[in-house]
Amino acid sequence: MIKSIEHIGIAVKSLEAQTVFEKLLNLSAYKAEEVKSEKVRVKFFRIGENKLEILETTDPTGSIARYIERKGEGIHHIAFAVDDIISEMERLKGEGFGFIYEQPKRGADSMLVNFIHPKYTNGVLIELCEALSS
Amino acid sequence: MIKSIEHIGIAVKSLEAQTVFEKLLNLSAYKAEEVKSEKVRVKFFRIGENKLEILETTDPTGSIARYIERKGEGIHHIAFAVDDIISEMERLKGEGFGFIYEQPKRGADSMLVNFIHPKYTNGVLIELCEALSS
Repeated sequence: MIKSIEHIGIAVKSLEAQTVFEKLLNLSAYKAEEVKSEKVRVKFFRIGENKLEILETTDPTGSIARYIERKGEGIHHIAFAVDDIISEMERLKGEGFGFIYEQPKRGADSMLVNFIHPKYTNGVLIELCEALSS
Repeated sequence: MIKSIEHIGIAVKSLEAQTVFEKLLNLSAYKAEEVKSEKVRVKFFRIGENKLEILETTDPTGSIARYIERKGEGIHHIAFAVDDIISEMERLKGEGFGFIYEQPKRGADSMLVNFIHPKYTNGVLIELCEALSS
């Protein structure tokens, strides 16, 4: 079951964009992390019950680099929190949605994640996140 | 002060996309509305503390039509809830952000709204929303 919006991911050319989001939200990023499997470095901001995540690529062939080449900087994905990613993947596959990975993988922020391909969701890249410890 | 994410706006070619988001979220849209000033028809879904808004244009020259021509369907904006849109606009102008409208205007869902131009926010269109009645 999709419970809430865990975070919104924003593709940026450089994490120097941190200063822009700090001014916008009037608060500081609370966490930085590198996610080698996704070839990104990220910073997180809290906003109410949700988070914003800004992502820069660590590799010119990575998905964030390719996204920015194609569409420019901007909102990259919406991540939904789920209790059990395997059962939610099964439910969504049953509804006809296709996933980018066969199995969930380790993402940022101690989460198991997978992505619905945006061709199934009107161009919106949807991430599912299950917290690994709670 | 920006308190929370009020909603995420998704540009779609047609509100028939409603069925996709109903399957994704496993719930029904709870509200439909036409916003003449923005040349859009919208539907809303609840997700935890937040909302998703899908938007279709009512006019081939409208901003949603032009967005889809340029970038395709997808995530269009993030809307933040504020208590006092005028004072938050002043704070943000003081930080160097520029707005699309000089004054807030009436948006969907009984809100006073304005938008920060995405050139100030790494390609992210940011809406500020003040609830007109609470």
